[in-house]
Amino acid sequence: MKGLRTTIVAALMLTTVTVSAQKPLTLENTVPGGSEFRKHYNAPAYGQFAGNSDIFIATESDGYHIGDAIISPKQIDKTLTDNQKQHMSYIVGWQNAEMVWVYSKKGSAAYAINLKTNTIADSITQIDDDGETDFSPNFKYIAYCYGSDLYVAGRNGSRKVNADSLPGVVYGQAVHRNEFGIEKGTSWSESGRLLAFYRMDESMVGEYPIVDITEREAAVKPIRYPMAGDTSHEVQIGIYNTDNQNIVYLKTASPVNRYFTNIAWSPDDKLLLVAELNREQNHLWLNVYNATDGSLVKTLFEEKNPEWVEPCIAPLFISNSQFVWVSERDGFKHLYLYDINKSTCKQLTRGNWCVTDLYGCNRASGEIFFQANAEGYLTRDIYKVSPKGKTTRLSNGYGVHSARFSKACGRFVDDFSAPDYAILSTLRNASDGKVIDTLKNVRNTYEGYTLPIIKTVNLKSADGRFDLCGRLILPADFDSTKTYPVIDYMYGGPHSQLVDASWLYGASTWKMYFAQQGYIMFTMDNRGTESRGVEYEHCIHRRLGTCEMEDQMVGINYLRSLPYVDTTRIGIHGWSFGGFMTISIMLNHNTEFKAGVAGGPVCDWSLYEVMYGERYMDTPQENPDGYARNCVADSIGRLNGRLLVIHGDIDPVVVWQNSLRLLQNAVEEDVLVDYAVYPQHEHNVIGPDRVHLFKRILQYFDDFLK
Amino acid sequence: MKGLRTTIVAALMLTTVTVSAQKPLTLENTVPGGSEFRKHYNAPAYGQFAGNSDIFIATESDGYHIGDAIISPKQIDKTLTDNQKQHMSYIVGWQNAEMVWVYSKKGSAAYAINLKTNTIADSITQIDDDGETDFSPNFKYIAYCYGSDLYVAGRNGSRKVNADSLPGVVYGQAVHRNEFGIEKGTSWSESGRLLAFYRMDESMVGEYPIVDITEREAAVKPIRYPMAGDTSHEVQIGIYNTDNQNIVYLKTASPVNRYFTNIAWSPDDKLLLVAELNREQNHLWLNVYNATDGSLVKTLFEEKNPEWVEPCIAPLFISNSQFVWVSERDGFKHLYLYDINKSTCKQLTRGNWCVTDLYGCNRASGEIFFQANAEGYLTRDIYKVSPKGKTTRLSNGYGVHSARFSKACGRFVDDFSAPDYAILSTLRNASDGKVIDTLKNVRNTYEGYTLPIIKTVNLKSADGRFDLCGRLILPADFDSTKTYPVIDYMYGGPHSQLVDASWLYGASTWKMYFAQQGYIMFTMDNRGTESRGVEYEHCIHRRLGTCEMEDQMVGINYLRSLPYVDTTRIGIHGWSFGGFMTISIMLNHNTEFKAGVAGGPVCDWSLYEVMYGERYMDTPQENPDGYARNCVADSIGRLNGRLLVIHGDIDPVVVWQNSLRLLQNAVEEDVLVDYAVYPQHEHNVIGPDRVHLFKRILQYFDDFLK
Repeated sequence: MKGLRTTIVAALMLTTVTVSAQKPLTLENTVPGGSEFRKHYNAPAYGQFAGNSDIFIATESDGYHIGDAIISPKQIDKTLTDNQKQHMSYIVGWQNAEMVWVYSKKGSAAYAINLKTNTIADSITQIDDDGETDFSPNFKYIAYCYGSDLYVAGRNGSRKVNADSLPGVVYGQAVHRNEFGIEKGTSWSESGRLLAFYRMDESMVGEYPIVDITEREAAVKPIRYPMAGDTSHEVQIGIYNTDNQNIVYLKTASPVNRYFTNIAWSPDDKLLLVAELNREQNHLWLNVYNATDGSLVKTLFEEKNPEWVEPCIAPLFISNSQFVWVSERDGFKHLYLYDINKSTCKQLTRGNWCVTDLYGCNRASGEIFFQANAEGYLTRDIYKVSPKGKTTRLSNGYGVHSARFSKACGRFVDDFSAPDYAILSTLRNASDGKVIDTLKNVRNTYEGYTLPIIKTVNLKSADGRFDLCGRLILPADFDSTKTYPVIDYMYGGPHSQLVDASWLYGASTWKMYFAQQGYIMFTMDNRGTESRGVEYEHCIHRRLGTCEMEDQMVGINYLRSLPYVDTTRIGIHGWSFGGFMTISIMLNHNTEFKAGVAGGPVCDWSLYEVMYGERYMDTPQENPDGYARNCVADSIGRLNGRLLVIHGDIDPVVVWQNSLRLLQNAVEEDVLVDYAVYPQHEHNVIGPDRVHLFKRILQYFDDFLK
Repeated sequence: MKGLRTTIVAALMLTTVTVSAQKPLTLENTVPGGSEFRKHYNAPAYGQFAGNSDIFIATESDGYHIGDAIISPKQIDKTLTDNQKQHMSYIVGWQNAEMVWVYSKKGSAAYAINLKTNTIADSITQIDDDGETDFSPNFKYIAYCYGSDLYVAGRNGSRKVNADSLPGVVYGQAVHRNEFGIEKGTSWSESGRLLAFYRMDESMVGEYPIVDITEREAAVKPIRYPMAGDTSHEVQIGIYNTDNQNIVYLKTASPVNRYFTNIAWSPDDKLLLVAELNREQNHLWLNVYNATDGSLVKTLFEEKNPEWVEPCIAPLFISNSQFVWVSERDGFKHLYLYDINKSTCKQLTRGNWCVTDLYGCNRASGEIFFQANAEGYLTRDIYKVSPKGKTTRLSNGYGVHSARFSKACGRFVDDFSAPDYAILSTLRNASDGKVIDTLKNVRNTYEGYTLPIIKTVNLKSADGRFDLCGRLILPADFDSTKTYPVIDYMYGGPHSQLVDASWLYGASTWKMYFAQQGYIMFTMDNRGTESRGVEYEHCIHRRLGTCEMEDQMVGINYLRSLPYVDTTRIGIHGWSFGGFMTISIMLNHNTEFKAGVAGGPVCDWSLYEVMYGERYMDTPQENPDGYARNCVADSIGRLNGRLLVIHGDIDPVVVWQNSLRLLQNAVEEDVLVDYAVYPQHEHNVIGPDRVHLFKRILQYFDDFLK
């Protein structure tokens, strides 16, 4: 590892990656969804730890690597009858290194295959299949949803958990539109005996009409979409007991205008922790509930913030009474150790940097494993911290490390990439970070291709307080005596970071293709983006787009200062929040940009959903000026340059009404906006059609910027 | 009149209109909806005949001209109280020259104002206002619709006609999607005692989701839209008796897959004629019903045609037993005199030309008044024919004449225009066509503006059998030694004629604006368009777009032969059927066109509605090859040139699904189609927004054709 580290540092000092080779890039190999993309993608080693063990089973093209043995998919397949393996059977998980669970869509059943005996050792059958299957930790039950209902399947068949089925009420599904780190709607206790689940009543929420044009006659498939300031859904948390099939609901405060997030079980199944927030999202209660009767044991602590509180990482228990909590309360995201019984709190980490992920703990040693950007905001490293607060770095090499830990946290896989290093996945000891095995090692995913020149530039935020890092991609045949058109690609919204110390500085590879076509590509993260601390992140409150834009103009002014940038040919492009930013900047600096492309843009924050929208903007009723000032649909009359707006016609995130309203106003205001629709695509154009999307974007810049 | 006629003929021999002047044209004065358009529009004299009299009351800017007297709107207004005249009161009709009916939206009431005494002489109050008000001939009742119900209001208040109100059933509204000349859903008998009305059961028809984005959260406003081959609605005809409020329904054959069209009352209220068609639209029954009990008196005659029968003009009674019927049965649209009692039929007109409108009859003399193109297919003239078949032309001057006759057909207004004459409206005697008064006389609506050069060219249809007439618009500063880009603007569908002998050869004036921007504009009607006889019109059967396209290519080849046409810069543009044609031609001749603009295009005839679609194409089940061959959505992969598709997002005629499907296939087929949406516009972009539309179209051609 030492040699590698030196190389990277040397390369970094040049802040330039240059590789000379023969083949030109294509959209098919640079755009995700392109037929050649996967070949060049810097994916980490696939695989997972078996059950509770420290055995990492790597999934490779020839099969599953278990120690020195390789189990081919065929061997697993042979165990199943033709009927069992029909319709996309896939691995659900490894109960241990000898027992793998395979899920078969046909028959909606999971089969446990003993790889020693090549027999089916166990099976669980669902009544049907409708999405995710959530296995209990002991592989005894599967929780799953069918329609609006929640089911639990075990060896004795499948049973509907909820008694009633009411219109507009759904059980067991993710709630609050997947905000607050919520990704699913069920949570098994460690013993696998109790199942916490969400019950969401959406009957009072407005329906947004999504139209399916693939039907013989177009048909409406409405979604419940609560818009900022409007009536939102109501959530309850139930606990299903697999022993007696009873349900207990937590006795929370009224679910009206309240968020229930970050559910966590104590190891002994006795307590359930829930982080609850008011609708304003500026006041959090960490509540402890009794899992037996649903009663409130205590409110362990509260957190408040003038702008917002946004818990995204659930409590991590290290014993039946102690857990780790991630909070921004001191201005940066850090770890706090709580004791429920003693009601004590100890801050474990500290500094002008952020914890960016929480992996797990070793209950024996009490050590907690996490990711943070303590070595610089472009980097991510893996650390452990003792219950006393002693922090140890477990990863090495400048760049971005992310980890997958075994359940007991005896080992982890470190997935590492650096500006000039595509991917290095290593299996390591959790205690000291020592490398046990190299799982994947690809230095350059574009070996043999002509890559552009990629470099970074250090800038300062518009208020002079924060470092910003811009990434420039120059054509491979760059000639500093010529001038080039430039495209600033941005996102700029919360929870994002586009420039980091990973492979090619995080440049998505289609940008390299655009550079090959003669454009200079620029990207820079602005204030409001992730993991830089509360002051950097919260300045956007009630005025989304304002300081983000000021920072982006720092980047633009830097570009304008470059002798090889043609200042009459500056373009701008972004998607989603970046689409909003693109339009906003084109309207507010309407003499500086020749062409822009905005995909899936929020055009009026009052058309966006409550959870995200109100966190940053408050409600339209509370903040009318903020909504009005940042409504690009209403100010489209200021447009000068050429603007292409793109939208998926079944976008359930930024609903189509956004860009249609903008177009309607454009007609009213007598300006011409170009438009593209991707039929039957949601918020992002994904899959093979994405290549078409980038052809269109490139064509637009070729038409109006080149 | 003699002097005028000579002038026109002289101008015509040059087949060129050239007017030199100073001011350039603008979109605002050449596009309907533009702020300056009305000033330059060749509208005929406004006004109407008073009641049953021969007095024509002209509506001019200073008021209503009744003989030498001028009644100002203010005088009428003064009679009404403030409350009565609120909310857009307007003239409904003149009971006679002294009594005018004014409708006031506020209060939903009609007031009869006596202009001698300046008092309200009578009034009728509705329960509410929801669209058209259909006055009985004696001004005793108003039939009107509210919601799905039919009402009749009289002096004694308003009464709901239909007893039941069932979901999906509507009363008194136009049916069969306004095909077959159907424009409204009620028809008063001459005495005003009986009201025939449609009852339409649409409950079995699929709903197409039209989305209203102007609501806080977008909302669906579905329409019943039966697509070709799908289940259609069922229609019945009721007769409401105002004396006893009873309803009798006609005892027709089953309404399943049957059209009920061209309703006509015998003058004595005793009989109701209905032209009934099978769903295939190739078999017509002219049925006579007893209005008292709804029984079928007799089927007077049947008409069949291998392609289709399409009655669009209702029978015109000249006595209680005799009526005139318009039929294409001899290959051209001509008049036939039927006697119900004697079951006899006499053909009144004959020749290789068509009757194009039927105005009325003089019951005393038996003379029938009509419009036809007997002087050449570019012209329209006014004629009378005696019951014995003697035809007399009543209009003079080469060009297009249309007429408005008084009820008893004692007089008529001749609205005349010619290639170099904008509008001449004259009041005339019906007996001999002699001019009594000149109501409006504007030779050039663009006096003082620089007009382009407009000329025609005679071509032959692709099969060599028919004359076609192309219209060229050349820039005013045309220089035959230079080369120009050209745009072929087409429609091409049934019931249309774009080139005729009216003002500027029928050129819509925005084309002159485009010519001013340096384009040569071309338009030509192809086979399948109107009033040329069955052979010319029916060749499109089961293959919409095929021979239409062959003919358009004759025009294109002519253009390519012109030394001043740049053959590398040929563009194409059309809307609706013309949008379909535009795409079809670009795909089938995909090396000949550089750019096209298709608005509101039918992209797959199976997505179009039953009545029109099946008449020309049969059902998709009966004619799968015809549908497949002419489905531009499915063949979009052949696109080479630049194509802009435009659609209104609430288009209820060519539903949005058409162009969205095309876009979806374009992605699949890896071709780039440009797109524009006009939010909250229906099938045509009308009103002030139309100026924006033409800016966009011009911008597109400027971007990719110029």
